[in-house]
Amino acid sequence: MEQAKNYIKENRERILDELFELIRIPSISSISDHKDDMIKAAEYWKEAMLNAGCDKAVVMPTEGNPVVYGEKIIDQNLPTVLVYGHYDVMPVDPIDLWDNPPFEPVIIDDKIWARGADDDKGQAFMHAKAFEAMIKTDSLPCNVKFMVEGEEEIGSPNMGKWCEDNKEILKADIILVSDTSMIARDIPSITTGLRGLGYWEVEVTGPNRDLHSGLFGGAVANPINVLAKMITDMTDENGHITIPGFYDDVLEVSEEERAKMAEAPFDLEGYKKAIDVKELKGETGYSPSEHTGIRPSFDVCGIWGGYTGEGAKTVLPSKAYAKISSRLVPNQDNIKIMELFKKHFEAVAPDYVKVKVDCLHGGQAYVCPIDIPAYKAAEKAYNTTYNKLPVPVRSGGSIPIIATFEEKLGLKSVLMGFGLDSDAIHSPNENYPLEQFWNGIDTIIEFYKEYVNIMK
Amino acid sequence: MEQAKNYIKENRERILDELFELIRIPSISSISDHKDDMIKAAEYWKEAMLNAGCDKAVVMPTEGNPVVYGEKIIDQNLPTVLVYGHYDVMPVDPIDLWDNPPFEPVIIDDKIWARGADDDKGQAFMHAKAFEAMIKTDSLPCNVKFMVEGEEEIGSPNMGKWCEDNKEILKADIILVSDTSMIARDIPSITTGLRGLGYWEVEVTGPNRDLHSGLFGGAVANPINVLAKMITDMTDENGHITIPGFYDDVLEVSEEERAKMAEAPFDLEGYKKAIDVKELKGETGYSPSEHTGIRPSFDVCGIWGGYTGEGAKTVLPSKAYAKISSRLVPNQDNIKIMELFKKHFEAVAPDYVKVKVDCLHGGQAYVCPIDIPAYKAAEKAYNTTYNKLPVPVRSGGSIPIIATFEEKLGLKSVLMGFGLDSDAIHSPNENYPLEQFWNGIDTIIEFYKEYVNIMK
Repeated sequence: MEQAKNYIKENRERILDELFELIRIPSISSISDHKDDMIKAAEYWKEAMLNAGCDKAVVMPTEGNPVVYGEKIIDQNLPTVLVYGHYDVMPVDPIDLWDNPPFEPVIIDDKIWARGADDDKGQAFMHAKAFEAMIKTDSLPCNVKFMVEGEEEIGSPNMGKWCEDNKEILKADIILVSDTSMIARDIPSITTGLRGLGYWEVEVTGPNRDLHSGLFGGAVANPINVLAKMITDMTDENGHITIPGFYDDVLEVSEEERAKMAEAPFDLEGYKKAIDVKELKGETGYSPSEHTGIRPSFDVCGIWGGYTGEGAKTVLPSKAYAKISSRLVPNQDNIKIMELFKKHFEAVAPDYVKVKVDCLHGGQAYVCPIDIPAYKAAEKAYNTTYNKLPVPVRSGGSIPIIATFEEKLGLKSVLMGFGLDSDAIHSPNENYPLEQFWNGIDTIIEFYKEYVNIMK
Repeated sequence: MEQAKNYIKENRERILDELFELIRIPSISSISDHKDDMIKAAEYWKEAMLNAGCDKAVVMPTEGNPVVYGEKIIDQNLPTVLVYGHYDVMPVDPIDLWDNPPFEPVIIDDKIWARGADDDKGQAFMHAKAFEAMIKTDSLPCNVKFMVEGEEEIGSPNMGKWCEDNKEILKADIILVSDTSMIARDIPSITTGLRGLGYWEVEVTGPNRDLHSGLFGGAVANPINVLAKMITDMTDENGHITIPGFYDDVLEVSEEERAKMAEAPFDLEGYKKAIDVKELKGETGYSPSEHTGIRPSFDVCGIWGGYTGEGAKTVLPSKAYAKISSRLVPNQDNIKIMELFKKHFEAVAPDYVKVKVDCLHGGQAYVCPIDIPAYKAAEKAYNTTYNKLPVPVRSGGSIPIIATFEEKLGLKSVLMGFGLDSDAIHSPNENYPLEQFWNGIDTIIEFYKEYVNIMK
């Protein structure tokens, strides 16, 4: 595999040029104006797969954005690795907080700065290049399939059906995904658990038009005040979610497992300093790692209503809105939770407002066993690159589709992520250190070797 | 005075043309882009005063938008009426809810539809035309002075100083203002009390950048959730404001006075139907008229933070904002209340966020005695036009400058308003019935006659 790694070293400049070309396509899946960009990004991936050495690659339509599928079958008797990634990215606002335009990648301080630099253009591209290196140096030890979708950031609404429809061609032994983070650049880790997600938009309507706050204020319920109270009532003073039945299916993690998790390094002061907060605030009785790893959350992702322009407008508004999300833990069913919240939020709406709840998207939580061959192979691969065994961690993030893969294809996924917490994914100034990019490719190459060895 | 009224009838078309010209100037004082429009509107008023018959009219600079002053002195021994109005208007968003462009006035169903049709271009213009009619028919019975400012909708920040600086030229016996409403088109009323105002903008900062709600959600305080709770905590379940000391200076209105106020007609079902709410919601123990007339309020006029675009973005935002206002009642000092809220809101901010409060603007509450000559004259004038004595009412709205006039000039104001609650001032589709406009002019003409008679 040293040859393959050398191939990468010799082609670094070209590889980055290719990645930048992909990043420059503003493929924001949640904004319908970008429909054409989704097609461009899909076509880009198809060409990238063919150029890297796939026997075939196709852009396959769905009811939403297409999925790009490619494959290289060298021997039906050898194991097959199915690589998953996504070509869509998050929106970029607030745009004025970016130091560089989000879709004009630049390298500063040995990092790539751009939307998608990490999530997931940078990380998914590592797989294309690791594969290319093994093809070009004639060292690919097994079959490889790629599926790269364009709707991950909006909850992969069409990927489940696409998997079902293409179950035959997707036959494989393991799914490999790079869309997560490591603990730190010198502390490798593999994400073995992912929280699920429920995401809603709520609309609270008071009077049928904006009213003069002087003439009506005090007599007529203000929908912003009401929304604020309804949001507040969804959690109690201990940060516990108050929706009846919300915790019914939460598997409490055993004291031993919590003790083991607590051994993972966590620098509280550094964590607080990095995001510039004086104190953390989570559910009483759990540590910060547990808050994001094994406990559900309740976050308002956005809120708006009334007058938000310059200066003062004395208005009692007609409407208030919020986008609300809850991260879910293994065994909580997102469909059930989404309905639970919707019913509860509508039921507790006071008579003096009208409330509407839309379920925007959701995803199941996921757990990866650490004794399966692919996990073991990944462990060894990280050890080769970093000279340190990776720590298995439960991550707070959701990749809803991972649970769907298990359900539809019967396949586990190994989450070989190389992001860092400082990469600011989903935020302004997203970035991806070049060191992680190159180490990631090397580790993926190592994985193939180890995996085929174990599977022999 | 019949001659003056006839003059108006004969010139109706031209008068509306002139008003429409004024309305077409988008003089929104809270948006700095409209600076030029403020000057245009001021120049328009200067010409209007001269054309109507003032001996002199000048645009007088302030640190903000200019004040237009004009006068007609016929005899130093006669009483002097000082007319106040404003040429600035409220912003127009949400713009898509307007049936006609806000600055292109049209007459439909015998109403003028436009921003400023009532508040306060339409109402202030009635005074210019009543004055013109008396001049042209040689029937003006006393001296008249005009002051028309351009910052009423942002709290008249420079009007207090302007009054102080021009105390000599502003000498008068009474101030006359049309910037309020009547109970209904057939129930005339005069506003004898105005609530004061405190208006703040608050900023809550959590982490120093938008975070991924999956990776951080549950462990890091979300500034929107925190803001929602802080807003909620400002009132209790009885709609009572919880800021310590907030009610200290509120004068409780006597049971007799409340009983008298309760005699004013109030159609609860009609009120609810007009704004399409199933129930009203106000402070426990008070009626809707009392909620807006004699009790303070606490309204969020605007709120924003996080992702507010299309679709779903799973973000734990860095910042959340709100514009908050409180209507104050007589004897509550707005400066004191503004400081009280600022200090309290900052003091109760939990350690895990940073909170900043800006006092945007405020105004004192005001009470007009119903036994002064000018009030008596207004009463008679309404009676002549409407064949019904006007009801004295306490209004929920604030015109902060009215209290300032009393403080700086030692003058009471009589609020001869001809608006209706259905005029949608400060809202989309602001309108002003022509009937109110023409009746208003007639009533103002009658006022001059009655006032000079009483003052003889």
